[in-house]
Amino acid sequence: MPTASSPLVVEVTRGPLVESRHAGILAVSDSAGRLEVSAGDVGRAVFPRSSAKLIQALPLVETGAADALGLTVEELAIAGASHNGEEAHVATALSMLRKAGLDGSALECGCQWPERGADVARLNRAGEVPTALHNNCSGKHAGFLCVACRLGAVTAGYVEPDHPVQREVTAALSALTDTPLDETVMGIDGCSIPTYAVPLDRLARAFARLGTGIGLGAARSDAAVRLRKAAAAAPFMVAGTGRFCTEVMTRFGERAYVKTGAEGVFCAIFPDAGLGVALKVDDGGTRASEALMAAVMERFVARDDEERAFLSRWSRRTLTNRRDITVGEVRLAADSRAALAA
Amino acid sequence: MPTASSPLVVEVTRGPLVESRHAGILAVSDSAGRLEVSAGDVGRAVFPRSSAKLIQALPLVETGAADALGLTVEELAIAGASHNGEEAHVATALSMLRKAGLDGSALECGCQWPERGADVARLNRAGEVPTALHNNCSGKHAGFLCVACRLGAVTAGYVEPDHPVQREVTAALSALTDTPLDETVMGIDGCSIPTYAVPLDRLARAFARLGTGIGLGAARSDAAVRLRKAAAAAPFMVAGTGRFCTEVMTRFGERAYVKTGAEGVFCAIFPDAGLGVALKVDDGGTRASEALMAAVMERFVARDDEERAFLSRWSRRTLTNRRDITVGEVRLAADSRAALAA
Repeated sequence: MPTASSPLVVEVTRGPLVESRHAGILAVSDSAGRLEVSAGDVGRAVFPRSSAKLIQALPLVETGAADALGLTVEELAIAGASHNGEEAHVATALSMLRKAGLDGSALECGCQWPERGADVARLNRAGEVPTALHNNCSGKHAGFLCVACRLGAVTAGYVEPDHPVQREVTAALSALTDTPLDETVMGIDGCSIPTYAVPLDRLARAFARLGTGIGLGAARSDAAVRLRKAAAAAPFMVAGTGRFCTEVMTRFGERAYVKTGAEGVFCAIFPDAGLGVALKVDDGGTRASEALMAAVMERFVARDDEERAFLSRWSRRTLTNRRDITVGEVRLAADSRAALAA
Repeated sequence: MPTASSPLVVEVTRGPLVESRHAGILAVSDSAGRLEVSAGDVGRAVFPRSSAKLIQALPLVETGAADALGLTVEELAIAGASHNGEEAHVATALSMLRKAGLDGSALECGCQWPERGADVARLNRAGEVPTALHNNCSGKHAGFLCVACRLGAVTAGYVEPDHPVQREVTAALSALTDTPLDETVMGIDGCSIPTYAVPLDRLARAFARLGTGIGLGAARSDAAVRLRKAAAAAPFMVAGTGRFCTEVMTRFGERAYVKTGAEGVFCAIFPDAGLGVALKVDDGGTRASEALMAAVMERFVARDDEERAFLSRWSRRTLTNRRDITVGEVRLAADSRAALAA
């Protein structure tokens, strides 16, 4: 590495040696599909996974479910979240379900232990095990169930591709990416809903459109703005303590919407520049996708040295060992950093 | 990927799509350095990390510490372990320390939560936090402290490069790999001891020598046999419940010594064939290093279809999601599998 097809490289050092390397591809697009950055084979189809949760939450607003149920800003934010399963996340997802007349038993995302040791310890000390409400996708699934109720659909099986909820979700992704999803590759996501492969450049363009509203129509544009502003107003709900998405949106507010996905995918909207971002690390490494997204923000979002310094905590991250001794760092390779800065 | 320098590829699929890819290099060597397999730039220097723990445990036997303290087979096995921090692991490491007149407070590896949720829950329910005894390296460090006592050295600072214990450990690695470690790159490992970069092909040859005893001298050869047989007799101590190293050595006994290391390194000894193995996944992914090692064993160790089927659970591993739905697999790319089988 770098390879011809995946030219962006994130290095992981230990002492003076580059111990490991991650390679990735990146598209930064405007709403018309003009690529501000095109690194690697950006026509490659990738599963957006959780990076597309804002798109998956559009029907929650567009169907009128959010207004009919009186969803709060926090609830709209967690509808597009991959959260840590902290207490506030569990409570917020449950609140959404209760507004729809449901509870955690309606969720079909599966159970998951919370991300942080402190939350695991709390459950263990209480003699409890995690529920589907602790699943990092519980807010998204609570949103799906709100949509099901709004549509008058049976809630059971709402994760299936042909359920009315998933048909709405799929239609939104298809329209925004100009990709006929019945002709593309489908996989099953960690939370059991379908995920569809979309070319990376079209994914970036979709997020540019969500930022500018261009070509979306008034209703979809309004829904996108509302979901984006909710994430900016309640960034803790989107991820949680110590997480990249939460820290970045806490710092930058509405200037940057960022959302991680499994297997090294990361998407973003930079509204002021009218740009959307999609990137994929070949091997799925999150430490590399976070470093790349931070470097992209250093170029397109940061206004001063202080903001660049904030971002460089992620684009050039210090690694410590179990005794807090500094052992190395995660950083963009010099030529990749230069290519991105160009 | 594959790249010219890292030609072996492990694919991670989701539905019909290859979602992620890992690339790696591999050397399979005999004691003379003749390469049975050479895939990629096997002259590249890598940090062996925990894959070299058998080598790091040689001074424990060679100094006479193991005999003087009456160490058991389980204690010799855990001296070369990266264990889960299960109850039996903690008890065994503590037993070693007590034989040397010490306790867990002498350990300088840092604290670490156990690997498995059940062990985390046990600590949480008891209102406890993990100690250095739970660190996956506690057995190795207990061995270091036994050596320090045997040498009459001060135990404090036994992790430092110039402490008599690390000088013995470094000398063993240097001799076995024919690499002057004062001329190579040093990093600090997760457990705070020094780790030295060694060319991958020399690491493979070192493990071949440990298997055959050729060129080691009687004392070192005996020590290597004893440590290898201890791992085969007590494979649970080397890793733990559900782990690759434990499952493989439980199945194959003395026919295969295998040891994982951080950042995608994996080493092995196949005594019957007189071969040593060292491999490194570029991005550090353990799911890929395990798949590669299993595929190497399918070629060099498996005797029948049943053994190949056992190994293929790792070389072609099914991935399930949080509701146990099959979503994909981790597998060698077809051309990499063909290249390895050749």
